[in-house]
Amino acid sequence: MSAIRGEISCGDGWEAGAAAPFRAYDPAQERELEPLFRDASDAQVERAVRAAAQAFPAFRATSAEQRAALLERVASGVEALGAALLERAHAETALPLARLESERGRTCGQLRMFAKLIRTGAHLGVVRDPADPERKPLPKPDLRRRKIPLGPVAVFGASNFPLAFSAVGGDTAAALAAGCAVIVKAHPAHPGTSELVARVLAEALHELGLPAQAATFVQGASNEVGAALVRHPLLRAVAFTGSLRGGRALFDLACARPHPIPVYAEMGSTNPTVFLESALMPRAEAIARDLAGSVTLGCGQFCTNPGLLFAIAGASTERFAQALAAALEALPNGTMLTRGIAQSYREGLARWSKLAGVRRATAERAAESACRAVPALFRCEVATFAREPALQEELFGPATLLVTARDRAELLQALALLPGQLTAGIHGEASELRAWPELLATLEDKAGRLVWNGYPTGVEVSPAMLHGGPYPATTDSRVSSVGPSSIERFLRPVAYQSFPSELLPEELRG
Amino acid sequence: MSAIRGEISCGDGWEAGAAAPFRAYDPAQERELEPLFRDASDAQVERAVRAAAQAFPAFRATSAEQRAALLERVASGVEALGAALLERAHAETALPLARLESERGRTCGQLRMFAKLIRTGAHLGVVRDPADPERKPLPKPDLRRRKIPLGPVAVFGASNFPLAFSAVGGDTAAALAAGCAVIVKAHPAHPGTSELVARVLAEALHELGLPAQAATFVQGASNEVGAALVRHPLLRAVAFTGSLRGGRALFDLACARPHPIPVYAEMGSTNPTVFLESALMPRAEAIARDLAGSVTLGCGQFCTNPGLLFAIAGASTERFAQALAAALEALPNGTMLTRGIAQSYREGLARWSKLAGVRRATAERAAESACRAVPALFRCEVATFAREPALQEELFGPATLLVTARDRAELLQALALLPGQLTAGIHGEASELRAWPELLATLEDKAGRLVWNGYPTGVEVSPAMLHGGPYPATTDSRVSSVGPSSIERFLRPVAYQSFPSELLPEELRG
Repeated sequence: MSAIRGEISCGDGWEAGAAAPFRAYDPAQERELEPLFRDASDAQVERAVRAAAQAFPAFRATSAEQRAALLERVASGVEALGAALLERAHAETALPLARLESERGRTCGQLRMFAKLIRTGAHLGVVRDPADPERKPLPKPDLRRRKIPLGPVAVFGASNFPLAFSAVGGDTAAALAAGCAVIVKAHPAHPGTSELVARVLAEALHELGLPAQAATFVQGASNEVGAALVRHPLLRAVAFTGSLRGGRALFDLACARPHPIPVYAEMGSTNPTVFLESALMPRAEAIARDLAGSVTLGCGQFCTNPGLLFAIAGASTERFAQALAAALEALPNGTMLTRGIAQSYREGLARWSKLAGVRRATAERAAESACRAVPALFRCEVATFAREPALQEELFGPATLLVTARDRAELLQALALLPGQLTAGIHGEASELRAWPELLATLEDKAGRLVWNGYPTGVEVSPAMLHGGPYPATTDSRVSSVGPSSIERFLRPVAYQSFPSELLPEELRG
Repeated sequence: MSAIRGEISCGDGWEAGAAAPFRAYDPAQERELEPLFRDASDAQVERAVRAAAQAFPAFRATSAEQRAALLERVASGVEALGAALLERAHAETALPLARLESERGRTCGQLRMFAKLIRTGAHLGVVRDPADPERKPLPKPDLRRRKIPLGPVAVFGASNFPLAFSAVGGDTAAALAAGCAVIVKAHPAHPGTSELVARVLAEALHELGLPAQAATFVQGASNEVGAALVRHPLLRAVAFTGSLRGGRALFDLACARPHPIPVYAEMGSTNPTVFLESALMPRAEAIARDLAGSVTLGCGQFCTNPGLLFAIAGASTERFAQALAAALEALPNGTMLTRGIAQSYREGLARWSKLAGVRRATAERAAESACRAVPALFRCEVATFAREPALQEELFGPATLLVTARDRAELLQALALLPGQLTAGIHGEASELRAWPELLATLEDKAGRLVWNGYPTGVEVSPAMLHGGPYPATTDSRVSSVGPSSIERFLRPVAYQSFPSELLPEELRG
């Protein structure tokens, strides 16, 4: 049975971090949690990457079946942690137990999904192009191509998904499935949760006789730990989910290396949603109720939280705005993941409230404590939205801004101002959208996923999912960080020319 | 019929460049060529990108059939230029007419290959995952995914392929096929050749009634033109084939943008080739003869030129070295593409010649003129190779370095020093390689393409080709710049959630 000892794993078993101490914090109970954690020192980061790099050739050489068994063992190990894992995650994040239980299901489902995927070999992207010795003027050589793992990969845990995008979340599962060695950097908002599952992974490697150092694990409350990781010359890729500032800093470090490496940073978005008259007229109240649920889900701390709403001014839009304000006011305050996030949210609300032309449509009310967040609806017109860049940026938390336009042209102008997004949504009847094709084309150009008559929260783990989008939603719009295709981030193709069958990798023979 | 007028196309027809003048140079005849060209000014670059960006929505909305017809029209238009094109390219590059004729065939073949590809729709990567309204605890939404073009793309012509990697070469063909608008930056070593084919592209757009500004065209002998292009906020990707210094400079600019964009820079490599005893003992002389042909092909100016040779010291290796030196000495000097390239080659030879532990195995002989290059074989041992970073870098031209190792372990040590490569080769018998699996694993980790008993020059345009590799061979090891898969560089996926069939893009319906 795993226990939380405040330790990290840099390649030679478990040890205490050697740099600054920190503690997990329970935002609901407003208290620090045991035990003490410590940041990894530069020397420990160096060892953690070097160990993973040394284990990489042997790990890469494992069979897909061996790695599939590893992923399945991790999934059942995480499940075997039982209530202890959920309770620790709840204490560290204030996320409800039911949500954490479902997130655990998703996490184990992802691990098993990648196990299934690599058993099929579909991720290898095998292409065969046989020789043609008779071709003129030159004979055509035999060419075959498959994908191989990139090398040691750093995975940064995300604050808002302590299981599904954390130590053994989707990024780690995809990288291990690909055959990459992984250095996990736990998120300091849930270090205990991370240690529990990281120990499960270490034990699974050990029990299956796989290279133990193929997964190492560091903690760090300071940015310096992550920076040292990304600068390490042996690292080959980075996966990150978090803020624009954090993701961009890692991206800049990675690009400035003598040997640049890809950074897959998912940095959130405002997820603009457009409400057409044909949706609002018949069902403004029902949409408002469901939307209020989406805005406040997980206390508004989803990357896909609907933070910007657009509609053309009119009676239906007014009904919708009033119903949405009422629905949000009727919902309780929520507890945010960390003091810092709650503080940023409060500051964001204050910043928006002060802007000329912006009005708060929900009543102000007090938060019960420093980590509690009050749901809020703001409103403005396109002219204000266009003038104030702060309104175009993500405000992380249970707030949303309804921007009203005079007409279609003005609404398109407002949308044109938006940077890249994870998602964009439209509510309406098909007949209205067909009469306004520019709307869909504009949103398609901005976002990775388009949602029709639905809400952006709830990211299906599907082969057809694209969780990503143009910058600044991510640093690489060509890939998804959810679903089986997310394994592509950790692979590169290699071609084999004129090799006899017996020398080819097994999957390329025949 | 196209003519060379020394003009560029920034969106409003053809005009003279407004910045510094330059002329094409005939390296064989040692004379400047008519007419005068001028760099595009910053304002012209700005217009060229803006025009392409404005044309992008309409060009993106064209059907695959329309774009296929465009590519085919460009191919036949290039062919229709006939001898005029080949003669101009020959004058500007000194590449033999036969080579240029075959390169024209490859160029038109690529255009037609992409036409065929996009008619199938295979490049769209369509994935459908149907809804399951009965799923518990939450219903599963309908999700479908396809790829869309990135936006306006800059294509930099390469010096060494005046047709196949230039104005209407593989990058331009792939980007147009994807539905991207293209801004071509011609290479100043063949501005006339570039203008001829760029006019064919412009005419094809016009004749087919497609958005005329979907392809714009600028000249530039100074780096500033390319830098202004890459910095332009409306640009969405960059394709480049050339030097490490040039590619890295563009990569750094692209990463430093407020909105970073992908740079697909193919920057060449030394293409290490290992010669096993089982190959050299029976056929050292035959291999040496064929290898000398590969080293001097195109005057050694291929990205895939075999610049580093490795073998274990012994009698067969000595026979091989002597035969290779003799074969290279028997070959005539060649004419290089530009004065600058020839100068760099001479300096490189001088630098290698001065290094302690390096000896020139081919006799020194005079070059007939400033643009002529003398083929050369150098030799050293692993200790020298390990000590001198200059030996590990590409020397562009018809020179190669044979590094001899005492044993297998030392040979692997030498290979471990190598940075990323486009290709790596092995000559031998299968039985010898099977007894030394580390060799293949080491080379696999370094290169994008592995060649068995062959030579790296000659890059097949094939779905199984991977022309790419780890940095510094390229800035993105996950893609190929040759073959149909190179279209992936200019596409990104978008997911559609819960859309009714009638609102979906046609390829996602049903």
